[in-house]
Amino acid sequence: MTGDAERLARVALSVAAEPGDDRLLALVDRLGPELVHDQLRTEGALAPRFHGLEPARVLADAERAGLRFVAPGDEEWPRSLDDLGAVAPLQRRGGVPVGLWVRGPLRLDVLAGSVAVVGSRSATTYGADVAAGIASDVARAGRPVLSGGAFGIDQAAHRGALSGDGGTVAVLACGADRVYPEAHRRLIEHLAAEGAVVSETAPGGAPMRIRFLARNRLIAALATGTVVVEAAVRSGALNTANWAGRLNRHVMGVPGPVTSASSQGVHQLVRTGSATLVTSGPDVLEVVASAGEHLQAEPRGAERRRDRLSHVQLQVLDAVPVAAGAGAESIARAAGLAVSSVRATLGELGGLELVEPHGAGWRLAAPARE
Amino acid sequence: MTGDAERLARVALSVAAEPGDDRLLALVDRLGPELVHDQLRTEGALAPRFHGLEPARVLADAERAGLRFVAPGDEEWPRSLDDLGAVAPLQRRGGVPVGLWVRGPLRLDVLAGSVAVVGSRSATTYGADVAAGIASDVARAGRPVLSGGAFGIDQAAHRGALSGDGGTVAVLACGADRVYPEAHRRLIEHLAAEGAVVSETAPGGAPMRIRFLARNRLIAALATGTVVVEAAVRSGALNTANWAGRLNRHVMGVPGPVTSASSQGVHQLVRTGSATLVTSGPDVLEVVASAGEHLQAEPRGAERRRDRLSHVQLQVLDAVPVAAGAGAESIARAAGLAVSSVRATLGELGGLELVEPHGAGWRLAAPARE
Repeated sequence: MTGDAERLARVALSVAAEPGDDRLLALVDRLGPELVHDQLRTEGALAPRFHGLEPARVLADAERAGLRFVAPGDEEWPRSLDDLGAVAPLQRRGGVPVGLWVRGPLRLDVLAGSVAVVGSRSATTYGADVAAGIASDVARAGRPVLSGGAFGIDQAAHRGALSGDGGTVAVLACGADRVYPEAHRRLIEHLAAEGAVVSETAPGGAPMRIRFLARNRLIAALATGTVVVEAAVRSGALNTANWAGRLNRHVMGVPGPVTSASSQGVHQLVRTGSATLVTSGPDVLEVVASAGEHLQAEPRGAERRRDRLSHVQLQVLDAVPVAAGAGAESIARAAGLAVSSVRATLGELGGLELVEPHGAGWRLAAPARE
Repeated sequence: MTGDAERLARVALSVAAEPGDDRLLALVDRLGPELVHDQLRTEGALAPRFHGLEPARVLADAERAGLRFVAPGDEEWPRSLDDLGAVAPLQRRGGVPVGLWVRGPLRLDVLAGSVAVVGSRSATTYGADVAAGIASDVARAGRPVLSGGAFGIDQAAHRGALSGDGGTVAVLACGADRVYPEAHRRLIEHLAAEGAVVSETAPGGAPMRIRFLARNRLIAALATGTVVVEAAVRSGALNTANWAGRLNRHVMGVPGPVTSASSQGVHQLVRTGSATLVTSGPDVLEVVASAGEHLQAEPRGAERRRDRLSHVQLQVLDAVPVAAGAGAESIARAAGLAVSSVRATLGELGGLELVEPHGAGWRLAAPARE
């Protein structure tokens, strides 16, 4: 737990400043929260905001509303956020938050191996299904799923994680005591009861675009990897992916039909090498795993009859014509084998229904043609 | 034109040996076709195949059937095939062909910048549409389209190239005088009339699996880049892609729904870094272009109203709440701007229908919310 004075300075800064204000957070990083707080409350543009601000009361009110304030130095503080101090700002948002407001039983320090699943608010059924499936697999593997609580992919990700009996956390742009969008009240209250609702915005704060941009950097920083399921060319999910890449996190993209505008942004990420293509939960787990964990067997397709044939059987089979029949002599020549051996092998292949008599010779039977 | 004796030796080897026989072709590379021909016709397993074989008559018959034999050293010989001499065999197929049998007006030496479009025989409508669109764009850009004349993606690629008024070439596993599959007689005859039908297999030769494998290496080698549109996990198109990669050609893959088995092989190629993701003809042209050619503008999505706003207008807009209204003072604080300036700007944004009055303040209007 950080010292009382530092903690109260952090709460005051959290209330008075905008989330992700890159210049202010750079100052806090250099000078410490108490010094920055002392300066800002007495001089400069933000000074009026500190008038009448009583951080101890803000904390007490928040606690009564079921919120806790988690700050750097606290045991619960997710160390991954410290990486934000090393990355340049984007659209003037950046830096390590002064603290996070949290509602829900899930502790932020368990987010170390978590996976963010984000994407378009106007998701297709396809995208929502894939997001839910991936989130369910990730949660089932014991990794919390992060998302933004929004419509579309976010909602599917949270629901998928819940169906996988795993932890899931919504990082919001509004205060963690608020609900946005209103239609997600039940979902967000459920997350607050079972997982966690997190925000850099002080309690009561409204959602606005700069806060979404600040929020996106937190999702990217908290998670080990970010999966973008569907994103149109200017989707906010690409902002999250951009942050994840700049933070050296794994960036993954789920492809879709090239005819779908909702997949265009993801395809752009993969095409430019900014994201790894993933198609499923196991793919995602393999990417975010430590070396040697979760390795998948290469998909081999349905086992085919070829797999059970001997080397000689394969040589003969490969030399049997697809359409018109050929005699054993001709097949033996193409295969480079003795005619007697080819004759015997053709009999075996016939028994397996891989070749069939045609005219005076043999040709491939239907099961062997694909 | 190669000398007569060498040419006849090549024709004889083409008839007597299997296409892509890696050991035989390595011998031809080392010793020359005449010496190899002289050895093989007198000793070893292939000797009986040369009995009664009169290459001059084979050539004359082929010419009567409208075929020509194009061999290394000929003006028409596509130099790209020489790269096959430098690449290790795959499934015992490999090497520079002793020659190619060609039917059709398109000269093989114009294939230098060509693009192969290949994929599953059991393509989906989605895959066929995308393949046809890409082939049409490639052909329209003056680059010939190569494929294998098969059902599914191959057929869509040839048809797309024809609709783009461009050259298209089918490389077959059977003799270039034959038609396989029979259902494609009209397509293949059309290609022979307008483009070219090419094969390493001597005239009259039947299609068989080793010949498909040998054929795939030719498609990969002839083209500057290979696009795989749909391929299940064990599709032959992946064999072509493998050859293209080993030959340092561009390998491209078109994604699809992750729920489609037909796209699974392509996703695997992209995921493992064996192929570049492409979504359209312009993507393909950019990949295969020489440096500086065919560069595309990054897709920016539909131009949004934001793009036409001033810096101050954007700052104010980003600080306007999404749902509940906020007063000008509160918005000014969040934006870090003077209240008077914010008031004026809110009026402008209201005129643009980006913000709307809500309660005693302002909130984002619907067009600004996404």
